[in-house]
This record gives sequence, structure tokens and C-alpha cells, in this order.
Amino acid sequence: MLKLESRKPTDVSPVERLHALVASDMAATDKLIHERMGSGVTLIPDLSRHLIDSGGKRLRPMLTLAAAQLGGYTGTGHVRLAAAVEFIHTATLLHDDVVDESALRRGKVSANIVWGNKPSVLVGDFLFSRAFQLMVETGNLTVLDILAGASAIIAEGEVMQLKSANNLGVTEEDYLRVVSAKTAALFAAAAESGAVVSGQSPERIAAMRDYGQNLGIAFQLVDDALDYSGRQALMGKSVGDDFREAKVTLPIILAYARSTEATRKFWQRAIETGPQGEADLDRAITLVEETGAISDTMVRARRYADLAREALAPLPAGEIRSVLGDIADFCVERAY
Amino acid sequence: MLKLESRKPTDVSPVERLHALVASDMAATDKLIHERMGSGVTLIPDLSRHLIDSGGKRLRPMLTLAAAQLGGYTGTGHVRLAAAVEFIHTATLLHDDVVDESALRRGKVSANIVWGNKPSVLVGDFLFSRAFQLMVETGNLTVLDILAGASAIIAEGEVMQLKSANNLGVTEEDYLRVVSAKTAALFAAAAESGAVVSGQSPERIAAMRDYGQNLGIAFQLVDDALDYSGRQALMGKSVGDDFREAKVTLPIILAYARSTEATRKFWQRAIETGPQGEADLDRAITLVEETGAISDTMVRARRYADLAREALAPLPAGEIRSVLGDIADFCVERAY
Repeated sequence: MLKLESRKPTDVSPVERLHALVASDMAATDKLIHERMGSGVTLIPDLSRHLIDSGGKRLRPMLTLAAAQLGGYTGTGHVRLAAAVEFIHTATLLHDDVVDESALRRGKVSANIVWGNKPSVLVGDFLFSRAFQLMVETGNLTVLDILAGASAIIAEGEVMQLKSANNLGVTEEDYLRVVSAKTAALFAAAAESGAVVSGQSPERIAAMRDYGQNLGIAFQLVDDALDYSGRQALMGKSVGDDFREAKVTLPIILAYARSTEATRKFWQRAIETGPQGEADLDRAITLVEETGAISDTMVRARRYADLAREALAPLPAGEIRSVLGDIADFCVERAY
Repeated sequence: MLKLESRKPTDVSPVERLHALVASDMAATDKLIHERMGSGVTLIPDLSRHLIDSGGKRLRPMLTLAAAQLGGYTGTGHVRLAAAVEFIHTATLLHDDVVDESALRRGKVSANIVWGNKPSVLVGDFLFSRAFQLMVETGNLTVLDILAGASAIIAEGEVMQLKSANNLGVTEEDYLRVVSAKTAALFAAAAESGAVVSGQSPERIAAMRDYGQNLGIAFQLVDDALDYSGRQALMGKSVGDDFREAKVTLPIILAYARSTEATRKFWQRAIETGPQGEADLDRAITLVEETGAISDTMVRARRYADLAREALAPLPAGEIRSVLGDIADFCVERAY
């Protein structure tokens, strides 16, 4: 809120600038999303709308559209792919919230709380199927292969992540493997498939994939740092979700590795054995700050954001490449 | 058990006869299934194997293989499709058991009980993604379209079915819509896609689809009748699952429509308001028998089995067509 007020009128975020660049394709994508989430079974569009219209940034589908625009694409396949990417993302969020027993999503009561777990699981399956129908309509087997592969990797990442709960034995390497799979795979596939559908060179396709992959990792690292940040509260998001779910993310991995005997016992109780008490989140926040775990998580995020920007080198210079690079920076800077 | 003992050595079921006809393709399918359910995340194959190796009949993938064999197919696409069909089926079973809070599946403790709901949801997602990867490998967009469409319809059917719980307002028409979607759509797609991948004529493709659709409906009607049958107990399956979950299937729809004031009150308490008591299942079984609800459910099943057999007419006469026809009969006769 504060940040918005202090902005000059021209101070729009790079995500907003990208949105402006792909505005007409994004409008077509939104139209298609709303058409295809329809069903004679009205619970399906009702539940889908709850999540799809809840103010998500549509960053993943924008990557698909931007990649296709970079290739000078004039067909409609990119819009179908962008809608498919958003459906896959929405389906994974629905299933995530069931798995995590989350109560909030994007500042709203989550679908599993409003309608229950059963419709959330099944509507997720429906949207996932719709995503594949949309991909089939592009007639492009390569993009189907990319997105089917990404979907399998996302599920693998989510299963891996289950082992991160209540487990201080998780290493930074384990953590990065989970993040690469559960988050970055879809960013990478979204960007790559936009380049493929627009018939770009193998070099540019690889560039878009690398950009998406590194951006996705940076994005998740920042998200995991923000979960211990007071700034998050200012953005209307809840703080401490990961901690309460005893999910071992990088801030805890680093803080635990740097703990004293006393703080080691704190982490073991709070994360592994329970129970958590009222004051534990505040203590955890203090510890991840004091040990430098948050700033080091951000250093790593910065490194991946830089890799994302560097990945863009083979792409033609211009407005889109420039905004994509700025999004990588913004993804890290939003945390400050 | 009794039936098996009274059989002559040559008295093999048509399902076993079909299995023999597609034996080498089925062995290749099983090999592929086990390869593709693999993952470095070992919980995925562990959980998948629990269900995939639990003695399912593989009826759906056999339909795909048989349809391709009818078309004289010599490629490998049918094996990939058959594995994909079994993965879609397995994924829906995993999600179903979470949704229904089931404790048993194929006579074994179900995966959601052994590993919990979270891995069941996520491994279902993984297998679903693997199914699409297998379909992509066939390089055939038409089969992708058929199976993606079927997957969306299955999910719609499952969501529709949620409204059948605790609801005596469900009509026979509603019920048939659910059954057509949640069960028959995959039978139809399995058979149709085998005919498509083997390049058969539109007439034969339509014949295989109609066969699968009607067989699937007959199959589910019989299943729902068996849930109130003592014979089911002899087959090692539990009886009364639908009743305990207050799921309104055709036996209840018919029995309720034929109820007296007293039995109407029984159904309202047992299905809509609760609580269910110890003796309620026995009373429900007596009522569905006495009102003719079970025999009329079977009459309808018989009708769909006949439609399935008739649908085969455009196919070339021979061993496979003959066995497929016998499977339709067997599907109904297994209940007696």
C-alpha cells in the first residue's frame, strides 16, 4: 500500500508493462479461459471462477504470449497455450490447497474451505483435462510434449515436497530440486511453448526455457523468504504459512545450519516434534533474520534472477526482451 | 467361489478369453506401465504399484488393444494408448478414494489409508500427466483429443455425483448422466482410440465407441446392483459401500419411488438426515430386493449390454468381435 502511494504515475511495475505489451492477446486468453472453464455442472465454473478471478497476475500465461510475440507469431495457438498454462497452474493450486489444508489463497478464503476438498480435487482434474484439450487444439505435438512433461515434473516436485514437512534433514540441494520441479518447470514450459508455437530457432527456444526456469526458481525463493517477512503482511498476504505447516524451506535450512544448541532445540520442537506455541513464529522470524538466512536466501534469488536475465541474450533486442529482464529484477526487488 | 468350482476346465470367462487374444500386447502394456510409473521420487512407484498390481482386470486397456488388433494394427501406438488408459483409470481411482474416503480398493487397504490423502492426490496427478506423455508419443492428435475429452467428462461426472450423496431427489436420468460420464466415457474412449490409432473407417470407429459406451453403462449398473448383493461378499468385495456413503444409485432411486410411507421415512433417515444404524444395511438390502429395484436395475443393465453387442455389427466377424459380444453378456451375468 505504502509503496503504491509513493509511486510516480510513470512508475509502473515491469509485470504491468508486460501486460500492456500483450494486452490484446491477454484479453483473448482471459475470454478463452472463461469460456473453457464452463460446464453444465455449474459447481465447476463457480469453483473455478473463485480462484481464476481472484486477482492472480497471470504471469505464466503472459510468458507464453510474450514468447510467441517475440517470434512474430500471428496465429491463435499461443492464446490456447496461455489458457492451458493458466488452467494447469489453477489445477495445481486447487490440489495444493487440499494437500496443504490451506485456508487462504490470494487473500480470499480458499476453495477447499468454501466447497470442501472433494470438489477442489475434481475441479482440479477437470481444469487439467481442459488444459490438454486446449493444447490439442494447437495441433502442435511438441508443445503437448513440453507441457505434459512439465505437469509430471510438477507432480513429482509436490510429492518430493511432502518429505520436507517436519524434516530438518532436508538439504539445500533437496530444496532446490523441489523448487525447480514444483514451480520453475511450469514457468519454463510456459515460456518455451510460446517460442515453439511461434516456430522460433532452437537457440531462442532454449533461451526462453532457461529464462523461465531461472525466473521460476528466483520467484519461489523470494516467496519463501517473504513468508517470514513483515512486508508480506503489508501486501495483504498471510505470514508464516510455511512455518505453521512445518514446511522446511531455504530460510529454515540456512538458519538451522547456523543454530546454537538452544536454537537447534527450538527448531527441532517447532518443526519436527511439535507442538508450536503462540510466540514461535516471532522467534522463527527473529532467528531467520539474525542468522542471515533471509538475506542469504535473497542472495541466491538474486543469482537466479541474474541467470534469467542473462538467458535472454540470444533473443532479439527490443521492448519485450527488456521487460522480461526487468521482471527478473522486479521479482527480487518486490521483497524490499 | 461356488461358481468357479462348478465350472468345467474349458469354461473360461470371456474376459480371460480376450486376455488370451491380446496376451502379447498386454504383456508389452504391463511392461510399459511399470516402466512409466517409475520416478526418482520412490513414493510415486510405491504408491502406484499398490494399486496397479492389485489384480485389476485391465479391461479398459484390453479394449484398446482389441480394437487395434481388429484393425490389423502392427505399430506400437496401441500399447502406449493402453498404458495411458490404465494410468487415467488409476489416477481417477486414487482421487475417487480420497473423495469417497474409501478404506478398501480391490480387497486391499486403499492407498489413501496407507499413505494418506496428500500422496494419493499428487500421485494421481503424476499418473495423469504420464498418460498424456504416452499419448503424445503416439504422434496421433485425434487420440489425444478423444482421451483429453474423456478425462474432462469423467471429472464432470464425478462432480455431478457429489450431488447424489444424501439426496433422494436424484432422478434416474441424473443417475444415468453420471454413469455415462464417470464410467462409460473411459470405456468408450479406450475402445475408440484403439480403432483410431489403427486407422479404421469412421463407421468402425463409431462402432467401437458405441460398444464401449454401452458396455461401460451396463458395467456400472451391475456394480451398483452388486453393492446390495450377498454375492458380492462371496467375491471378496465389501457390500453396502454406496449405502454407507449415502450415495443415491439406481437401486435406491427405484426402491424409494416404490416406497410406502414407512419405508419412505426409512430412506429419508438413512440417506438424507442420518444417522444410520447397525441394522439399516440389511433393511435396505431387503427393500431393494422386495421392491424389484435390483431386478429392474439388472433389466436396464441387460438392455445396455444388448446395445453394446449390437454396436459390434459393423466390425468384421471373428474371434475378437465374438469375445467382445460375450463380454457384454458376461458383465451382466456375473451378477447371478
